[in-house]
Amino acid sequence: MSDMLTQLDRVLRLRMQQGDGDSSYVASLHHKGLNKILEKVGEEATELVIAAKDAEGRDLESAEHRALIGETADLWFHSLVMLAHLGTDSRAVLDELGRRFGLSGLDEKAARQKS
Amino acid sequence: MSDMLTQLDRVLRLRMQQGDGDSSYVASLHHKGLNKILEKVGEEATELVIAAKDAEGRDLESAEHRALIGETADLWFHSLVMLAHLGTDSRAVLDELGRRFGLSGLDEKAARQKS
Amino acid sequence: MSDMLTQLDRVLRLRMQQGDGDSSYVASLHHKGLNKILEKVGEEATELVIAAKDAEGRDLESAEHRALIGETADLWFHSLVMLAHLGTDSRAVLDELGRRFGLSGLDEKAARQKS
Amino acid sequence: MSDMLTQLDRVLRLRMQQGDGDSSYVASLHHKGLNKILEKVGEEATELVIAAKDAEGRDLESAEHRALIGETADLWFHSLVMLAHLGTDSRAVLDELGRRFGLSGLDEKAARQKS
Repeated sequence: MSDMLTQLDRVLRLRMQQGDGDSSYVASLHHKGLNKILEKVGEEATELVIAAKDAEGRDLESAEHRALIGETADLWFHSLVMLAHLGTDSRAVLDELGRRFGLSGLDEKAARQKS
Repeated sequence: MSDMLTQLDRVLRLRMQQGDGDSSYVASLHHKGLNKILEKVGEEATELVIAAKDAEGRDLESAEHRALIGETADLWFHSLVMLAHLGTDSRAVLDELGRRFGLSGLDEKAARQKS
Repeated sequence: MSDMLTQLDRVLRLRMQQGDGDSSYVASLHHKGLNKILEKVGEEATELVIAAKDAEGRDLESAEHRALIGETADLWFHSLVMLAHLGTDSRAVLDELGRRFGLSGLDEKAARQKS
Repeated sequence: MSDMLTQLDRVLRLRMQQGDGDSSYVASLHHKGLNKILEKVGEEATELVIAAKDAEGRDLESAEHRALIGETADLWFHSLVMLAHLGTDSRAVLDELGRRFGLSGLDEKAARQKS
């Protein structure tokens, strides 16, 4: 299986391992430590709430809607960095979501066999 | 492509459309409106920060680590509900992440052709 | 000096000491522990952000403005509970604010002499 | 009555009115608008949660405790800026807290007569 989050996990893990804190934003976050990463998660969550209030009732093509997507991406990205920092990745979270919604079945298994 | 988030988008959309506000948690969130959904996003972000502080330095099999995965799942889940409420879904966010990290290329295309 | 926050500190300290976790909301928060108190701080901060977005451009007498004041009160109240839980109170915070803004001078001293 | 928050309200109002967005941090926040102020409120709330986790169990004289006081001051300060931006101030919030806790009585009235 080669979905986006799995690829992103791989990229984030590489940057964490190879980085020296100067070469990339991801490496610099890991270098600064968990508190800094969590500050970013909280910050992006607030920005997402504000962006959603501004996007309500607007067209999907509006600047407000594009900002909403960008803020959601920021929040997910920083939570992936947090997961990597604590030694895990998106797979554990997706498995948990799958379990809750009974989605770990055929489609998922098929996708894994293809990859 | 049949990844977990895409499946989850479909489930969330169905529950939003069919729900009457009593039958499911998702329908009840949509019924209460955007502010309620955003309160949950903010609440789960805070719970994630607290869980991450408690999980730091613990074993991946620890209760603290399982709580961290559960809180991340809660946060992602409520942000998916928010996206559905505002007329969009995880695809837009994953595309944005792919664009930022140069990941929308071969793997992703291949995955789409298989599904 | 007998300002509102100092009085409130006293009330919160009393309820924390006397409470058995059933008799009052404050006692029950302390009983549940720091994580629960911090969840409430984060929750109220998000509700404040949402209320402020809704209050912008509205009349000071509007329901939206009254909600904003109520949410700010909720946030300050829960941060006072947190301070009490960790062994301190509003005085330390007000002293810090006074120091930053050069306000610990005559007015404040005069107010203390009167009380 | 001349308590710290009332003095601070006055200072913040002055800086808001006189500021040109370059001269002071407060003026620059107002210049950037409500969203920027709310981002700071959310950011400081997260930093407070993290600081409280780090301060738990530490001495009142520890660096962690001083950081907690500093973060609480940051949060209250930015919520005062938000109140000023929306045309109100700490008095409305303290009145609300007084009402909830039955504290708007003698002490408070006496304090007002003195000022």
